[in-house]
Amino acid sequence: MFSKNIIPKTVNPDLKKEREGANFSSEEFAAWWAGGKEKLEFNRSVREYMYKDFDYNENQQLYYKSHEDMCEFAVKSSIDVAKKLRQLQARRNPGGNEYWPTLFDEPELWNLHRAGNPFSVMYMVVVDALKTQCTPEQYKEFGVRVERFEVTATYAQTELGHSSHLRGLETRADFDRITDQFVLNTPSISAYKWWPGGLGQCSNHAIVMAQLYIDGQLKGLHMFYVQLREEGTHEPRPGVHIGELGKKMGFLGVNNGFLGMKNVRIPRTRMLMRHAQVHRDGTYVKSPVEPLTYFAMLSTRCIVARNSAVALACAATIATRFSAVRRQSPIDTSLPEPQILDHVTQQLKVFPEIATSLAYGLAYNYLRELFNATSRDINLGNYNRLPELHSLSCALKVMSTSDSAAGIERLRLACGGLGYLASANLCNIYVNTVAACTYEGENTVLLLQVGRFLMKSWRAAQSGAPLAVTASYLAEVHQNPEFGLWSGSWDNLVKAMQFAAANKTRLAFKSLSNRIDNGETERMASSHTGIELTQAAQLHARAFVVHNFLAEVTGPKSKARSPALNLVLEDLLELYLVNVALNNMSDILRVVHLTDEDLNKLQARLEAALAKLRPNAVAIVDGFDFGDAQLNSTLGFHDGNMLERVFDAALKAPMNRKSVPKSFHDHLGPFMKSNI
Amino acid sequence: MFSKNIIPKTVNPDLKKEREGANFSSEEFAAWWAGGKEKLEFNRSVREYMYKDFDYNENQQLYYKSHEDMCEFAVKSSIDVAKKLRQLQARRNPGGNEYWPTLFDEPELWNLHRAGNPFSVMYMVVVDALKTQCTPEQYKEFGVRVERFEVTATYAQTELGHSSHLRGLETRADFDRITDQFVLNTPSISAYKWWPGGLGQCSNHAIVMAQLYIDGQLKGLHMFYVQLREEGTHEPRPGVHIGELGKKMGFLGVNNGFLGMKNVRIPRTRMLMRHAQVHRDGTYVKSPVEPLTYFAMLSTRCIVARNSAVALACAATIATRFSAVRRQSPIDTSLPEPQILDHVTQQLKVFPEIATSLAYGLAYNYLRELFNATSRDINLGNYNRLPELHSLSCALKVMSTSDSAAGIERLRLACGGLGYLASANLCNIYVNTVAACTYEGENTVLLLQVGRFLMKSWRAAQSGAPLAVTASYLAEVHQNPEFGLWSGSWDNLVKAMQFAAANKTRLAFKSLSNRIDNGETERMASSHTGIELTQAAQLHARAFVVHNFLAEVTGPKSKARSPALNLVLEDLLELYLVNVALNNMSDILRVVHLTDEDLNKLQARLEAALAKLRPNAVAIVDGFDFGDAQLNSTLGFHDGNMLERVFDAALKAPMNRKSVPKSFHDHLGPFMKSNI
Repeated sequence: MFSKNIIPKTVNPDLKKEREGANFSSEEFAAWWAGGKEKLEFNRSVREYMYKDFDYNENQQLYYKSHEDMCEFAVKSSIDVAKKLRQLQARRNPGGNEYWPTLFDEPELWNLHRAGNPFSVMYMVVVDALKTQCTPEQYKEFGVRVERFEVTATYAQTELGHSSHLRGLETRADFDRITDQFVLNTPSISAYKWWPGGLGQCSNHAIVMAQLYIDGQLKGLHMFYVQLREEGTHEPRPGVHIGELGKKMGFLGVNNGFLGMKNVRIPRTRMLMRHAQVHRDGTYVKSPVEPLTYFAMLSTRCIVARNSAVALACAATIATRFSAVRRQSPIDTSLPEPQILDHVTQQLKVFPEIATSLAYGLAYNYLRELFNATSRDINLGNYNRLPELHSLSCALKVMSTSDSAAGIERLRLACGGLGYLASANLCNIYVNTVAACTYEGENTVLLLQVGRFLMKSWRAAQSGAPLAVTASYLAEVHQNPEFGLWSGSWDNLVKAMQFAAANKTRLAFKSLSNRIDNGETERMASSHTGIELTQAAQLHARAFVVHNFLAEVTGPKSKARSPALNLVLEDLLELYLVNVALNNMSDILRVVHLTDEDLNKLQARLEAALAKLRPNAVAIVDGFDFGDAQLNSTLGFHDGNMLERVFDAALKAPMNRKSVPKSFHDHLGPFMKSNI
Repeated sequence: MFSKNIIPKTVNPDLKKEREGANFSSEEFAAWWAGGKEKLEFNRSVREYMYKDFDYNENQQLYYKSHEDMCEFAVKSSIDVAKKLRQLQARRNPGGNEYWPTLFDEPELWNLHRAGNPFSVMYMVVVDALKTQCTPEQYKEFGVRVERFEVTATYAQTELGHSSHLRGLETRADFDRITDQFVLNTPSISAYKWWPGGLGQCSNHAIVMAQLYIDGQLKGLHMFYVQLREEGTHEPRPGVHIGELGKKMGFLGVNNGFLGMKNVRIPRTRMLMRHAQVHRDGTYVKSPVEPLTYFAMLSTRCIVARNSAVALACAATIATRFSAVRRQSPIDTSLPEPQILDHVTQQLKVFPEIATSLAYGLAYNYLRELFNATSRDINLGNYNRLPELHSLSCALKVMSTSDSAAGIERLRLACGGLGYLASANLCNIYVNTVAACTYEGENTVLLLQVGRFLMKSWRAAQSGAPLAVTASYLAEVHQNPEFGLWSGSWDNLVKAMQFAAANKTRLAFKSLSNRIDNGETERMASSHTGIELTQAAQLHARAFVVHNFLAEVTGPKSKARSPALNLVLEDLLELYLVNVALNNMSDILRVVHLTDEDLNKLQARLEAALAKLRPNAVAIVDGFDFGDAQLNSTLGFHDGNMLERVFDAALKAPMNRKSVPKSFHDHLGPFMKSNI
């Protein structure tokens, strides 16, 4: 009936009207958000080249495939991306690396890896790890081969029975003095390597983290470069038991795998020996620098924090456009059904998530600068900033992943039943983002580390010792614990979050101290104070994010932006600050008294902020500048032809190719007949 | 290496120890929870019969299938369940219905419908709707055929462009006086019927909700019984455009479909005419009873509220057993890694969800009694209780689905990476439960209805008019708005929630009244007050749930339970009340002043409640009495052999059957070679 060419070539009039009604320039927003006009143009030119033959229909078929076909498709897609990116590099800047491999796993290209990238660990972790852990000779021998994709390698650390507690890893590498080899073994089921992306069927090498034994003596964890499959045939090598973990909630084609080893022998020179060494005679030389081993993990953690915010911005774009073209539930029965974006309850579901993605994007910018500064320091032998960087990267990784995942799911639900369809892509964005709450440091484990950083910081505040910049408010609150007057200004709201965080830190410190005074060891006391420590860590992270958001919007950088753009950013800031304050009010009320009138005013400000953002909402998400293929959502196309695309995608479901399914003849038909 | 017979026949010693250490009887809990010893035995005997040849391995393969194969498998599985249930009925009580069809869609049998039940709408909605909407002659003619499964029918109400706002439905049925027929048409893409379970390829009939026109005059929405496919061949009938919606986040094999009609003709007698009629001459007789049309939806809503709580209890069982056998992160470095159930942060993730599933289970019991009482009243022509039943069913549907979905996802995340595996089944439980936030009344839409009920109730409280039982606290607070002293007793905590709910209701009422005073229509004012109305509705629901939980545990029913069981239930009550109070503290602090000391005490009570539940946690979830096949989770087996089952499931992933995948030869191998 309506099955041919149903998608209009024109823009949905509701969406057109929204864009025309905005009172700032999406283009200026986009350039600012991308980090400058040049970067924006670079991004767009990359997308244009890479997505030029993107086939939406082929892409829609992904979710109908069997797991095996999906995995095959994932390998094909990612290899295609690699080829094309290298082509682009060769064409535009041969010898450089700003396209390949730099962009291989960047958000710009996410949807070209149709079912996830089974080789992402290689360029995200392995190459960096080899660069920092190999001797120059080692890197030349096998590191460059990974960098050039002559071989494929993954990073095998966690085990089936062991993840957060690294020292508990069981995989062992025994030095065999006679043959000058290490012998790797998986002593139990719980010692199987578990999770590495691409380990299943896509990697012929891995960096394996194992307990080093020399003459039966444990020397602690070290990294070993192990060949897992033959280069020519891809067959697993003798003693290597390898495979994939099976279906997961998301990460469908990432080919996460397991690895067991039985007397797998590698040359002694395949232990990564830049920092620690085993000599030919079995002499062991300990690494002089402990922290560096974990620097690669730290860098990945920062990227995870950023990617989650990008994913949230994707979902917010989809849900905002959807809400502008979906009409539902009359407000006034004499009028037609309104755009659901006009319902205040819908605004409250959507707009705070736009602000949240912005807040974490800006927080990441700060984190990246701290990371770069710390890297420079470390190269000069100065490790002072490392604890702060570690703590901030943990805090932002946790909050960005958990707020983004929760936000994406709220946005998906805000699209009603249509958000449940695979063609909306929101399910997919959710299941992939929520995974980040667990990988690269489980969120609770990381919060406990931030909590311990806060305990140290509070102790320093008490003794007047210097504090890290991002924790310095603790000293201020400690010295002057009276909040003073509530005004509700932006500064005041940020201060309230800092006082709430400091107060929780103080309470946690008190509980911890009490437990120690009562005879518990510090570790045990710390464990028993876990709930308060994680709560303090969360508030600490929130206090940083609101503080940074305020500084970015009202600070000196505002001078580089037009007044119109600044006004919009201020509206987003206002919404974010008021919403965060309301959501954390029970903690705020412990440090400052708000009258009933103050609270009513905050509620009114929340609603006013939503109303103020209403006319600019579509233009703001346009400013995130995602391409249609990046969003890959029937609900979120730039042209707003939402219903038609949802309908078109349903028509293309493979079950609809036949008028009668096999199951009717085999099961349903005979059963109905038997009942007559 | 470890690939054969790796699953021990014994119970994991950690789990064994937990059970031996419990200080109450799981069996007594189970009998109480099931609603009596007889009911428990009935459930067990049903499970024993129905699951006796349940094949875990076959089941694990489900998620590897293509969508089409999954749908075929769903039809086969559900027909198998139907056959087997009828067999059971015939064997144990021929002529009765307590097995078939009563149990067809009950939680006891969920996992026998391997990919969801494509025929669930038939017995959940259609048969009831036919019973209440058909004339006796109609029911005899075609209603019984559905009841007997001679045909398959679904319920087609929502459209692609219309869901919550029923009056906006576009599908039309025009009376053709000449042929004595109705002519059904789908005037636009947005008018396509969208979502009905089983509509895609599994139904040959549907109840279609359409706008009735007689001589071009609109007579409003009516139900029509329409044949969609030929009975013999299952081919779509002329003018019927039908198919499935395609892949979704969950409900994989439920075969949700779309339906467009072009001049589809049905006899006049296929309009369901018990209440409204169209005579041969075109005379239209209006229905005298409006509300009854929606009674079937109300009943379904109650079931949805219950099912969500059951799903949460499943997830809590899995996560608790997992936490008892998983060892991770040493508290004291001199000791082995503890069961993660010993970490307070883990306890806080798991135990409140156990209590929450209990709270909603008990709330459902109240709701079911109210439902039964209202049904009896209605049969006597008394509709007085209907508004309260409507409001309470909406409130509990919303809170049970949203709290359960969020809780299941928290529990899944509490199982770390292993919770992300399909074999853990937690993903599946989540995606199916979260769908209920949207179907059978979108949660925000329902909350707004509860909000309107609260506005009416508050007005009644102001004028001294009588209130529904579950809203009577509003009158009490209105008459005596001073909370009085905070004691922190259970009664006091419940009272605090009631005062918080009443206060939000008062504030919403004030905002609503202000808007009306400023010239807005009541509808518009109500829409603009949406945020406060939904917040009041949520607090109202929470106040009911805590009040009911307290009454069930400490009321007269406690006399039928042993002191040991009562103690455990009191521990769960304590945790639930304290946790709900802490989570809603900002609203509580607006009605009663708590000192810093009071708040510290609550925090201490939270931790104490967790510690008290710790030794009984495993025994409590054992008391939910789920069978292994019901949980269907490698993490949650009764024997606790978790790691081995996770490992075993991974080994059975189909990709692991071959040592080298096709993608190596086609894509990866050639690419690596080209780089050398």
